[in-house]
Amino acid sequence: MADQKELFVKMVLGSWNAKLRQTEALLAELNDEQLLQEVAPGKNRGIYLLGHLIAVHDKLFYILGTGNPIFPDYEEIFVNKPDRAINELPSIQELRQSWSAVHAQLANSFDLVSPDQWFERHRLVSEADFATAPHRNKLNVVLSRASHVDYHLGQLIFLKKQEPII
Amino acid sequence: MADQKELFVKMVLGSWNAKLRQTEALLAELNDEQLLQEVAPGKNRGIYLLGHLIAVHDKLFYILGTGNPIFPDYEEIFVNKPDRAINELPSIQELRQSWSAVHAQLANSFDLVSPDQWFERHRLVSEADFATAPHRNKLNVVLSRASHVDYHLGQLIFLKKQEPII
Repeated sequence: MADQKELFVKMVLGSWNAKLRQTEALLAELNDEQLLQEVAPGKNRGIYLLGHLIAVHDKLFYILGTGNPIFPDYEEIFVNKPDRAINELPSIQELRQSWSAVHAQLANSFDLVSPDQWFERHRLVSEADFATAPHRNKLNVVLSRASHVDYHLGQLIFLKKQEPII
Repeated sequence: MADQKELFVKMVLGSWNAKLRQTEALLAELNDEQLLQEVAPGKNRGIYLLGHLIAVHDKLFYILGTGNPIFPDYEEIFVNKPDRAINELPSIQELRQSWSAVHAQLANSFDLVSPDQWFERHRLVSEADFATAPHRNKLNVVLSRASHVDYHLGQLIFLKKQEPII
């Protein structure tokens, strides 16, 4: 049983880590000027999507019960409000540092979650709901967030000068 | 053990099905003219991305060992070649039908895969590699493909007239 759980945790964290590495490779390739552009005419800017991903991932500390957000003000700026609603955003340089801080801390806290704990209830689901829907566990949140990274990665790739490779 | 596996399968197929339903809702909203547009200037057209998703999913029959592609010619057009390399694409109407055909057939074949079988080796990994990397199983392919849908969904959403909701 523990082996099965470990295998599944490995599958999901493998997907999550692969998407983060892919995003980091793209962020390393894009300069600050490119990240200030809209990914497509009239759509979100790179800076907003970068902040959005950080804010959504920073929320994981709370959802998984391992801590509190490192940048609690990001949620209002990059999740609750759309792009351009707030004039003063953190700088790209600041966001690059925040990305590193959040993901380094998340990696540390993920290391402390045991295979059994990954299959426990997360904080956005009630005990009653979890009793009838045990797939709504902590690991499922990470599975869903990994896919969410891909959603925005498909957009951020448009900031590159070359055609996207699919 | 069987219960654990069933739960994992439910998590991954739940993610896969959610992404397909989300794509289908978008496809129902987009008319053929919109699908002929580029998702962003100089980027892939909607028609190409639609064919690309069908082709990639049609390949799953082979990878999972449950059959053969229904539209074997799509791989050359929508995976091996980039958009605009081939002049004569299937029509949008034809692609909408192919989408339905492939996903109906996939749903049927997924129903026949037992929880144990989902954790078996898929056809793109050798027996030797699988022995040391058991996470490279059939279920992991579907997990990865569900995320791949999200990648292109983040692009196809740009064909809508409204701002994307993130």
